[in-house]
Amino acid sequence: MSEPHDALPDGGRRARTGVPEVVFAQGKTPERTLALLAELRRLDPDGPALATRCPDEVLDRAPDAFDDVTVDRVGRTVTVGALPPPVGDVVVLTAGTTDVPVAREATATLAALGVGARLVADVGVAGLHRLLSRIEDIGRADVVIAVAGMDGALPGVVAGLVPAPVIGVPTSMGYGVAAGGRAALATMLAACSPGVVVVNIDNGFGAAAHVVKIVHRG
Amino acid sequence: MSEPHDALPDGGRRARTGVPEVVFAQGKTPERTLALLAELRRLDPDGPALATRCPDEVLDRAPDAFDDVTVDRVGRTVTVGALPPPVGDVVVLTAGTTDVPVAREATATLAALGVGARLVADVGVAGLHRLLSRIEDIGRADVVIAVAGMDGALPGVVAGLVPAPVIGVPTSMGYGVAAGGRAALATMLAACSPGVVVVNIDNGFGAAAHVVKIVHRG
Amino acid sequence: MSEPHDALPDGGRRARTGVPEVVFAQGKTPERTLALLAELRRLDPDGPALATRCPDEVLDRAPDAFDDVTVDRVGRTVTVGALPPPVGDVVVLTAGTTDVPVAREATATLAALGVGARLVADVGVAGLHRLLSRIEDIGRADVVIAVAGMDGALPGVVAGLVPAPVIGVPTSMGYGVAAGGRAALATMLAACSPGVVVVNIDNGFGAAAHVVKIVHRG
Amino acid sequence: MSEPHDALPDGGRRARTGVPEVVFAQGKTPERTLALLAELRRLDPDGPALATRCPDEVLDRAPDAFDDVTVDRVGRTVTVGALPPPVGDVVVLTAGTTDVPVAREATATLAALGVGARLVADVGVAGLHRLLSRIEDIGRADVVIAVAGMDGALPGVVAGLVPAPVIGVPTSMGYGVAAGGRAALATMLAACSPGVVVVNIDNGFGAAAHVVKIVHRG
Amino acid sequence: MSEPHDALPDGGRRARTGVPEVVFAQGKTPERTLALLAELRRLDPDGPALATRCPDEVLDRAPDAFDDVTVDRVGRTVTVGALPPPVGDVVVLTAGTTDVPVAREATATLAALGVGARLVADVGVAGLHRLLSRIEDIGRADVVIAVAGMDGALPGVVAGLVPAPVIGVPTSMGYGVAAGGRAALATMLAACSPGVVVVNIDNGFGAAAHVVKIVHRG
Amino acid sequence: MSEPHDALPDGGRRARTGVPEVVFAQGKTPERTLALLAELRRLDPDGPALATRCPDEVLDRAPDAFDDVTVDRVGRTVTVGALPPPVGDVVVLTAGTTDVPVAREATATLAALGVGARLVADVGVAGLHRLLSRIEDIGRADVVIAVAGMDGALPGVVAGLVPAPVIGVPTSMGYGVAAGGRAALATMLAACSPGVVVVNIDNGFGAAAHVVKIVHRG
Amino acid sequence: MSEPHDALPDGGRRARTGVPEVVFAQGKTPERTLALLAELRRLDPDGPALATRCPDEVLDRAPDAFDDVTVDRVGRTVTVGALPPPVGDVVVLTAGTTDVPVAREATATLAALGVGARLVADVGVAGLHRLLSRIEDIGRADVVIAVAGMDGALPGVVAGLVPAPVIGVPTSMGYGVAAGGRAALATMLAACSPGVVVVNIDNGFGAAAHVVKIVHRG
Amino acid sequence: MSEPHDALPDGGRRARTGVPEVVFAQGKTPERTLALLAELRRLDPDGPALATRCPDEVLDRAPDAFDDVTVDRVGRTVTVGALPPPVGDVVVLTAGTTDVPVAREATATLAALGVGARLVADVGVAGLHRLLSRIEDIGRADVVIAVAGMDGALPGVVAGLVPAPVIGVPTSMGYGVAAGGRAALATMLAACSPGVVVVNIDNGFGAAAHVVKIVHRG
Repeated sequence: MSEPHDALPDGGRRARTGVPEVVFAQGKTPERTLALLAELRRLDPDGPALATRCPDEVLDRAPDAFDDVTVDRVGRTVTVGALPPPVGDVVVLTAGTTDVPVAREATATLAALGVGARLVADVGVAGLHRLLSRIEDIGRADVVIAVAGMDGALPGVVAGLVPAPVIGVPTSMGYGVAAGGRAALATMLAACSPGVVVVNIDNGFGAAAHVVKIVHRG
Repeated sequence: MSEPHDALPDGGRRARTGVPEVVFAQGKTPERTLALLAELRRLDPDGPALATRCPDEVLDRAPDAFDDVTVDRVGRTVTVGALPPPVGDVVVLTAGTTDVPVAREATATLAALGVGARLVADVGVAGLHRLLSRIEDIGRADVVIAVAGMDGALPGVVAGLVPAPVIGVPTSMGYGVAAGGRAALATMLAACSPGVVVVNIDNGFGAAAHVVKIVHRG
Repeated sequence: MSEPHDALPDGGRRARTGVPEVVFAQGKTPERTLALLAELRRLDPDGPALATRCPDEVLDRAPDAFDDVTVDRVGRTVTVGALPPPVGDVVVLTAGTTDVPVAREATATLAALGVGARLVADVGVAGLHRLLSRIEDIGRADVVIAVAGMDGALPGVVAGLVPAPVIGVPTSMGYGVAAGGRAALATMLAACSPGVVVVNIDNGFGAAAHVVKIVHRG
Repeated sequence: MSEPHDALPDGGRRARTGVPEVVFAQGKTPERTLALLAELRRLDPDGPALATRCPDEVLDRAPDAFDDVTVDRVGRTVTVGALPPPVGDVVVLTAGTTDVPVAREATATLAALGVGARLVADVGVAGLHRLLSRIEDIGRADVVIAVAGMDGALPGVVAGLVPAPVIGVPTSMGYGVAAGGRAALATMLAACSPGVVVVNIDNGFGAAAHVVKIVHRG
Repeated sequence: MSEPHDALPDGGRRARTGVPEVVFAQGKTPERTLALLAELRRLDPDGPALATRCPDEVLDRAPDAFDDVTVDRVGRTVTVGALPPPVGDVVVLTAGTTDVPVAREATATLAALGVGARLVADVGVAGLHRLLSRIEDIGRADVVIAVAGMDGALPGVVAGLVPAPVIGVPTSMGYGVAAGGRAALATMLAACSPGVVVVNIDNGFGAAAHVVKIVHRG
Repeated sequence: MSEPHDALPDGGRRARTGVPEVVFAQGKTPERTLALLAELRRLDPDGPALATRCPDEVLDRAPDAFDDVTVDRVGRTVTVGALPPPVGDVVVLTAGTTDVPVAREATATLAALGVGARLVADVGVAGLHRLLSRIEDIGRADVVIAVAGMDGALPGVVAGLVPAPVIGVPTSMGYGVAAGGRAALATMLAACSPGVVVVNIDNGFGAAAHVVKIVHRG
Repeated sequence: MSEPHDALPDGGRRARTGVPEVVFAQGKTPERTLALLAELRRLDPDGPALATRCPDEVLDRAPDAFDDVTVDRVGRTVTVGALPPPVGDVVVLTAGTTDVPVAREATATLAALGVGARLVADVGVAGLHRLLSRIEDIGRADVVIAVAGMDGALPGVVAGLVPAPVIGVPTSMGYGVAAGGRAALATMLAACSPGVVVVNIDNGFGAAAHVVKIVHRG
Repeated sequence: MSEPHDALPDGGRRARTGVPEVVFAQGKTPERTLALLAELRRLDPDGPALATRCPDEVLDRAPDAFDDVTVDRVGRTVTVGALPPPVGDVVVLTAGTTDVPVAREATATLAALGVGARLVADVGVAGLHRLLSRIEDIGRADVVIAVAGMDGALPGVVAGLVPAPVIGVPTSMGYGVAAGGRAALATMLAACSPGVVVVNIDNGFGAAAHVVKIVHRG
């Protein structure tokens, strides 16, 4: 019988799909996360290894565990290996400040996979002037990721204003009917502006992975 | 034992609450709806009697059944008795054209209860310029009713731009996650703009009733 | 790239919409909440700055952090700056005693924004005489906010008895099918009494913001 | 192999449980419903045989098919055999007139099983005086069945006013969040008045069966 | 303005409805629960005062706080005042041992309100012989309360076997689709055996209150 | 571009998985269903071709379209080709008579795939003696399929009584909380008797396919 | 007051966002749909006008109503104006044949907006060889749209095999837990393969709009 | 009255159904779990006694409490008594490493009940080569249990490739729409590959119990 937790890391995923296997650290022991980072680094030397949803202990221990490491405490990511030179121009928007950690998971993923990104926070639709005053600059991006909890209205409003593809990321922030992010998810899926696509709640990594495929494929 | 469908019409509701009892015609026979309109007209002569959600047969037969009647075929309402002179200035917005019937239920109710209303259709957030170019005029209203299906984003965006109280009315128009109006309802309840209040899905009458209380109380 | 949590406080919201931006303290560090209160106070000197859903540490530290501060430990609000003279007469009802914190968030918001309010607690429909014996007095209010968890029946019953507009606030108190407040929310949206409007679960602030717009606009 | 639809009618259920097997006619052919009525009448001659949810064709054909038959077109029931003398005093309330068919299913079941019942329709909480003016009389009942759709608030209000046990029957009438009856069901289960019990949506028969057991057991 | 948590205890509820107001201790401070017990005891001396869902501290302190007190640590109830002599014979069944605390809330309520009760635990349908071997004895009860989590099948099976009215109490015990008790609730509402009525999840008190009304009314 | 509806029938599925591809006729034109039956018969001559959920027109036309065809009008299946000799002994139970069509889809599938089956209808738990009097015979089966709507309690009760593996099939029959079959599905998944497995609502074919794999593999 | 259904067609949307306004014909009269097509054609002559979800009458009348029109009866689209020369290479996959109409809405949209597309139908995961034998060819696409109902597993499996970005389109085909498409939607959002993005159920147009933005932006 | 928690252990369940009663330790005190293990061992000496979902304290104390005990810390099971010689060949697959604890509950149950099992972890569909390279070996199993969270796609893919019956076990691992396991559950129930059956979320024991019945019955 196999040993428990006998993982089969997929070292060929980057070559096959354009996005390498990544360590989802939530629910794993810090030892296991650090070991998997090392193993993925070894199996796939074509780029850095990435861990997301890292608990504090992983964020604390990573700098001692690896030579060339980037830690984002807000986005809870650890990147092992040199960051590749960024290509493309992606804008990551957030509706509120509480959405920033999810947005930072996206920007760290983009950085690890060689895509250039700018974060523009707190431009939700309750104060539309904050968005409109920046819309020309946002409109120059290759792709836009819009992160929002509560009503999740931001991606639909942005998609009606700019030519870039817009990926909506609902967040679990909120209370009452918004708790857990399902209201924001439904809003984004039902957006009246054509072409908004959506990822799972809080899935900043997934939005970034889609963007990486677009930018590197383009 | 009481007879079946032995209704107890509430002729004193207008005096007690500011809004008279109204006939909800859906699921009633046309005979019953017309009889109830006549009875409410008799019990409460202080204003017109109103029926909502009228099927075609009621809309067709009402002009012959009453002397002083107003029929709105789009909003499916019948008003029996002279319309009172309107007071106040209410703007009723819709996100799309399919939301207009619900908005017309609201404007017919406002007219029947003596409140002035303007309907501004098809100003959803997918083409924000349509809303922004009218926002100064909308901002002069005493109260705004915003009717929207699909993503239901309109009330939140409007409430961030004008000082008037905003009542959101989700509609059941839409498909997939938006079917039936629950996505729009959740969006409105979770709106980040403070002070948006919400009524049941497709309940144009209820939104108008709230506005009548505000305007006549003010 | 922007710094994390790089907020864009909206100092013009009071002038634009009648309700200033407010700090939603839940999920923020006490430092951040206190700093945002100070910044909003500076950006918008036309009235006090308000924080809602404050954890204990904010409630404890606020009196030392500001000169002119009002703390409501039950409603978990902090108001910085002199309270404006109240106008209007709003009655805030609760069905039970466990609904009082949400009601106090509403009364503190009304006070901060210059609206007069009276709190009448524990008048739920299980003992209807408690409500009926006060109904004449309640009926004199300009607006009624009715806060209720479990079955959420209070707003509908009140709206059938008084001419004032009624805003229902469902609370998350309760267990079983009532847990989280969705049963009370649905009850209020489906209320048979015309004109009940509803805000998100536990959103005492939102109900108050709507009332502020009504009272100041009227 | 058994033949299709090879039913095993339970002729001993009345003796075992106090309530006989009853034909649920919805989804059955009229022939099958009439045949089952005849068979149950034969298997259990201790009382009449009952069919509920009968389509028009069954209601039309029943008088010719049986000698001693009672048809309730509103409640859609057919009772074959002499009605037993009624014992007890049960009041069946409805919130609105559209709830009457479900209430009539209950009263017909009570009549078929020998319990006396009075129907009091259209006493919902939107016009509370209609209920309060009759409450003394209602309070004399042995048991109260309260039938309500939309907000489903009636059973909780009644249970706070009278000593009789109250059974709530949610109905599927309503629209938006009330469509299908789940909002009314949740309201009744979460009623703050102690001792309200609930049956499935539209299940007038089930409420009556519970009452029969109470009255005949008492 | 009223003081926070300004309760309005309903001392006349026993006389009006047959069931006194009871302290729901969950979410209240121990001091408040003990004070409310004392106040209810004073307002309504016709029987003992009861608190349900008591946290450990209330269970610990109650014996010192009152002279004549009964504490059920399993059911988490405190009864202040002499227990009245029991009338009637109620059987309280549980499907498993984890359902016993809810059943004990029911038996303590019955005892406090003067109804005799027997608890029969762990007779769920996975081992049907445990139920069948006791069914003759159970069948002699005036009323049966059946408490069950997970699949919630017990009330329906019992109701097909005995003439007593059966009240189902779903419990929140369980995992996966059964977590929180909604699966058991739906099963009981959909029970094929006629006459099963249901209360809210974990609401042992509510089931007992209904039974008290039946037994004292009978 | 491919032609619309350009199907890729999987003629090797029987050899690969033990169960051939089957035509799901619902939503297909009769022509298409009959053509697919002919094509599957040609691609995989090792056994008959089967179509499930056939509308009336397919059931009517099949006897003329094929030489060796078996039509089950109750189960709505068409089998083209000689039935293989049955092996094994499977009992298919139904709780009520309205569950029989789903059970017949299962028995027709078993017959088409060479497994012997007996149908025992109308043995739901509301009249437990009907099940208990047959339980010894049922207990001799190799596998039991238990089909039930409404409360879905049958599979759990049976699984506590017999050694055979039990597969539960929830049906969409029912009303109120049982409408659509989700209540029965949850009951079966939460069954306290160990070893009950479940298929999708109304999926008599799927239950049979699992049994075929068990019997032919055993 | 504005006239009913007073639409404000957004002729500048193509220039602003890369995707023109499109007529959603479901729920509109054929006259209205044809008139809107003509008006959009006039307002925005830079490309063809498109209507989706056209009922039969629109599909029938469109060839007579316009000079240069393309009708897709399977995908229920009408395109007015010359199709632009296609750029790029998009593969549209379907899991089953019943998913083809949604896929055809996507391919017609891509054609109308100048993107080249290939449709590969019936390659669901139940017969994985159908997908694997084509995977090399699929892998050469710029973008992949994967349309699937029931379990919705196709997009996740494909995204693990090819470097192209994958957009999942859940369809409402299916029964039981799959009815309406929410199961497929959840599966796609929860796909373990990184980078799958999702649109609303049955929203072939939305997926195509996203792809148009990618291809034309690239 | 019975004592609280007065369990009625079912020592005859193994003889009656092929699977003995098992201690579900979650929510029980360690003392109670250990006592029940001892009692079941005494009541049914024909095989070992098993406890599942054991908290750490039970896992720690079990080796001292019993002579012949097997503890699986990953699967959280305790088996008391000699393991019977295994018959049959069952493969237990997991999609990811976080699904291993549920799979280990299944393998420990199989071992306790005398069925041979192999665990193959981390073969989810995001890296299909991991599954395909082992499929021939997996295909030789008598039965396959496939454990998966998030999208839950593994059982359907496997069932399309091998002749063995496949039992799907959804796990509660995951976030967003996958949180709690309902997305995986729906995916498995809607699997397009025929013959997949499903158990409750995280119910590794239940899947094993079904397999034990198959293997010992075969």
